[in-house]
Amino acid sequence: MANSRFKYVRNFELADNLLPSTYLVVRIDGKGFHRFSDAHSFAKPNDKAALDLMDRAAKRVFEEVPDVVVGFGESDEYSFLIRKDSSLFSRRESKIVTLIVSCFTSAYVFYWPQYMPPERILQYPPIFDGRIVQYPSTSQVKDYFRWRAVDTHINNLYNTTFWALVLQGGQTTTEANQTLSGTVSGDKNEILFKKFGINYSTLPEQFRRGSTVVRSAVEAVNETFGIPATANAEPSVTEPEDPRKIANPLFGHKQKKKPRAIPPYDGTTGEIVVLHVDMVKDDFWDQRPWLLA
Amino acid sequence: MANSRFKYVRNFELADNLLPSTYLVVRIDGKGFHRFSDAHSFAKPNDKAALDLMDRAAKRVFEEVPDVVVGFGESDEYSFLIRKDSSLFSRRESKIVTLIVSCFTSAYVFYWPQYMPPERILQYPPIFDGRIVQYPSTSQVKDYFRWRAVDTHINNLYNTTFWALVLQGGQTTTEANQTLSGTVSGDKNEILFKKFGINYSTLPEQFRRGSTVVRSAVEAVNETFGIPATANAEPSVTEPEDPRKIANPLFGHKQKKKPRAIPPYDGTTGEIVVLHVDMVKDDFWDQRPWLLA
Amino acid sequence: MANSRFKYVRNFELADNLLPSTYLVVRIDGKGFHRFSDAHSFAKPNDKAALDLMDRAAKRVFEEVPDVVVGFGESDEYSFLIRKDSSLFSRRESKIVTLIVSCFTSAYVFYWPQYMPPERILQYPPIFDGRIVQYPSTSQVKDYFRWRAVDTHINNLYNTTFWALVLQGGQTTTEANQTLSGTVSGDKNEILFKKFGINYSTLPEQFRRGSTVVRSAVEAVNETFGIPATANAEPSVTEPEDPRKIANPLFGHKQKKKPRAIPPYDGTTGEIVVLHVDMVKDDFWDQRPWLLA
Amino acid sequence: MANSRFKYVRNFELADNLLPSTYLVVRIDGKGFHRFSDAHSFAKPNDKAALDLMDRAAKRVFEEVPDVVVGFGESDEYSFLIRKDSSLFSRRESKIVTLIVSCFTSAYVFYWPQYMPPERILQYPPIFDGRIVQYPSTSQVKDYFRWRAVDTHINNLYNTTFWALVLQGGQTTTEANQTLSGTVSGDKNEILFKKFGINYSTLPEQFRRGSTVVRSAVEAVNETFGIPATANAEPSVTEPEDPRKIANPLFGHKQKKKPRAIPPYDGTTGEIVVLHVDMVKDDFWDQRPWLLA
Repeated sequence: MANSRFKYVRNFELADNLLPSTYLVVRIDGKGFHRFSDAHSFAKPNDKAALDLMDRAAKRVFEEVPDVVVGFGESDEYSFLIRKDSSLFSRRESKIVTLIVSCFTSAYVFYWPQYMPPERILQYPPIFDGRIVQYPSTSQVKDYFRWRAVDTHINNLYNTTFWALVLQGGQTTTEANQTLSGTVSGDKNEILFKKFGINYSTLPEQFRRGSTVVRSAVEAVNETFGIPATANAEPSVTEPEDPRKIANPLFGHKQKKKPRAIPPYDGTTGEIVVLHVDMVKDDFWDQRPWLLA
Repeated sequence: MANSRFKYVRNFELADNLLPSTYLVVRIDGKGFHRFSDAHSFAKPNDKAALDLMDRAAKRVFEEVPDVVVGFGESDEYSFLIRKDSSLFSRRESKIVTLIVSCFTSAYVFYWPQYMPPERILQYPPIFDGRIVQYPSTSQVKDYFRWRAVDTHINNLYNTTFWALVLQGGQTTTEANQTLSGTVSGDKNEILFKKFGINYSTLPEQFRRGSTVVRSAVEAVNETFGIPATANAEPSVTEPEDPRKIANPLFGHKQKKKPRAIPPYDGTTGEIVVLHVDMVKDDFWDQRPWLLA
Repeated sequence: MANSRFKYVRNFELADNLLPSTYLVVRIDGKGFHRFSDAHSFAKPNDKAALDLMDRAAKRVFEEVPDVVVGFGESDEYSFLIRKDSSLFSRRESKIVTLIVSCFTSAYVFYWPQYMPPERILQYPPIFDGRIVQYPSTSQVKDYFRWRAVDTHINNLYNTTFWALVLQGGQTTTEANQTLSGTVSGDKNEILFKKFGINYSTLPEQFRRGSTVVRSAVEAVNETFGIPATANAEPSVTEPEDPRKIANPLFGHKQKKKPRAIPPYDGTTGEIVVLHVDMVKDDFWDQRPWLLA
Repeated sequence: MANSRFKYVRNFELADNLLPSTYLVVRIDGKGFHRFSDAHSFAKPNDKAALDLMDRAAKRVFEEVPDVVVGFGESDEYSFLIRKDSSLFSRRESKIVTLIVSCFTSAYVFYWPQYMPPERILQYPPIFDGRIVQYPSTSQVKDYFRWRAVDTHINNLYNTTFWALVLQGGQTTTEANQTLSGTVSGDKNEILFKKFGINYSTLPEQFRRGSTVVRSAVEAVNETFGIPATANAEPSVTEPEDPRKIANPLFGHKQKKKPRAIPPYDGTTGEIVVLHVDMVKDDFWDQRPWLLA
């Protein structure tokens, strides 16, 4: 084959397989999103349409990659947890990280018109970068999402107060920075409440907590047994501890007959839902033991 | 800072810097593009609009990353050469590869409506993956692009003959495969000419040679000296060996006065142009010595 | 400094840090030890002096590197377990693996005259190579040592029978290979017993089980409290489950007074001992929970 | 095979192949050699026996690994250059670096009694660590050895002056440090000459320049043609530019008859010699073009 004389250049492709049996977290960040936000007049401190679009792009990653079992987003970043035992692309780092970044980016541009008001035309193609981090144990994975959740809280409280001072309080951005310099959480809550009548804890959970994406075990189990999904599963309601037993009264009976037919639920099937929940506490993980199994 | 308790999870982010002073080639591939081509009724064997869109997305990568100095595309793949001495993102592998894949993907979706006929609506967000390969020497870089160029030729000759047999010759795809089994280039050329009156060598260069993206040295030099770019620089005409001297009659004079003001041209500035040229011969590289300098 | 002009060459030294919080196993193998064994007339199938020397070299690694907490050796190989939370050399792979291989090699040559009969002069410097493997979980670490222990058993049973056939049975090595072809463990045990009167299970444990190196918790705890070590701690006797309480009657009392003064034993201190124990069962690990803590 | 149940642990062994077609430099450093020098009463500022032993250990690496073509040593460190196109152990990093470190260490201990006075008994096994660095181009390789050579010069001039001040001048080490603080090369040369009558440039080249190890092309070519090696090839004399033509008057004749029989000399055969030459200038490399070919 004429090809073979130059094919030796493939020998320079080095293996980049990740360690087996570690949790993989892919974190995606918008590149130059300060400029992007300004160019598209995103509302301050939070633009709900922009956040919803991020969530939609994240769901697209779930649709494409079953081994992605948890997503968490805030602002212009999103993190994805891949199952510990995933053999996706033989765990080749470049393949995995580029696939997910490309999928997310593609969906972000594709779904833009569905999520944005008609006058807000996409001005130029946005870019995201990404990286993979390996975590050996469940406690580190939980702490990873705690780290992002705490970051969400801190940033959002700051930004909410900052933009209240600017947009409602008439301060310049420099003045607002000075006002907030050295303040702690309590101070910011007080400024919001006393000066602007804003009770921070009543602001939308999407802003305060970020967005968590998972697959609904209820849906997955019902599908397995050919039972129509409950009409309106409320996504932000926490799933029951063993969803298969409660969701389906026939379940226990069937299980007795053919226990081998029901592999334990592993989080890779079911309806993809977006929650706005507390990721610092253990509840999220305790209610979904399959995520870290 | 409340953040710090969980911040230790960043210690799991390992360095992934590439070796300094190597040429970096990023190759992007469409994922599942057989299905994507079918879903969007791409013409066989080549869909010019689809190829033009790929070229446009590649140009967007050039717009975003000055250190990308050569691109080469065929079918649903594109390769990008990054300068040997680039310190882009401190040569962090994940940053570079995800940035380029995301930029390409984003532009592909963004520019879709500009390149496709109005009835060809994008059905779902396409995905590309990517990888980086390091090459220590210029001969390997040239051979890399020769490898892709030869691949373009072989695939295109095969596909052109195959689809002529099917679309014009009435064969099934199975029959066409059998007809072509064991044939060499000469056989395919003969089939095309004798059965279908197609002279392969007169088909569009874009199909036969793929697309090569570079920056035009002529433009870059003129811009430096504030001289309007020549109205219609013909991109596929080969640039003169030292473009600065020929393009601008004042150049030699200025050079004598302020020789320090003119750093050697390095391929990172100038108008981005798409060529359809022979990448197997040395001419392309010989005419642009700055690309591998 | 005159040095600085060339110092840029250090930029080509890439980071090679291993993932935090994984168990590290360094495995060392003799290079060309068939030839080495012949050149030094090692007894077949096992040369006790040579194995004792391997064990001594392994102990030297323990003396040099406190974070090495388990060693396991058979034939011309040795494996070393490094604590999960070790920050030895910032977990730089090359540093760790070369240090341990060099230390082992150096000790092997250094202690040769102490372990070998005087007429067995070292003919040339032996070489070992090594590699590091990361394991995220305790079960994998246990399975790693099970893998080597089962390998020890299989190899030793084979070699013992093989050399009995050759040295006592008068077969050629080719004939002995044929005799053993297709046999299972039971067959080999029977050959040994019926043909040569050898009861395999009574052969020295060092040959059948390999050598396991750990630090003695008893010693470590006594040292901490200034109490002379028990005169003759029998190394191959399994340590008690909580060695601090049983070994020292005063221990519990002191613990009540100053509980903060006693950090949990972590396996990095105490007398280094060589055991010949069953590494397939869980007992070894169950009795020393600190090793995988 | 009973082994297979646990054999999955091998899946955690990740590939660590180095990039093809790069020069590999392995640098070995003594660990804790201040203490080691004191424990063995090495002469200050240079112990010729200790340096000769380092050189002997380096030659052992050359004996073991033909692809090692240049060595350079000073003090307790040694660097080894591996040919660009070497496929040693498929260029697996751990294999290569541990093999060379182990070989060097083993030889150092093995040859100790041959190089040291009888009363200088080795007190404990010394340790070396090592790392591999990849260099894409010849200029970087030359600069690497220049970097070490300049370092040798600077360190040796400092140490020679320092120990003259202490041993002959009666200064304490603290005083000697103060005397040398802020001095440049010229100052140190003057101190040596005026205070101690030492002309630095006449001190042994081994101390001033370090040790360079190569294979002698003369020997290699003579061996190829069955001609006895010249009785006393003076290693520190520079080899002629094309050694095969000058060393053997019959050579040209033979070459005409069987040109295919003579592959170009590549530095992997011939007598291993230790030189003390200027590694900053280009002469060393110019006279041996095969080393970087």
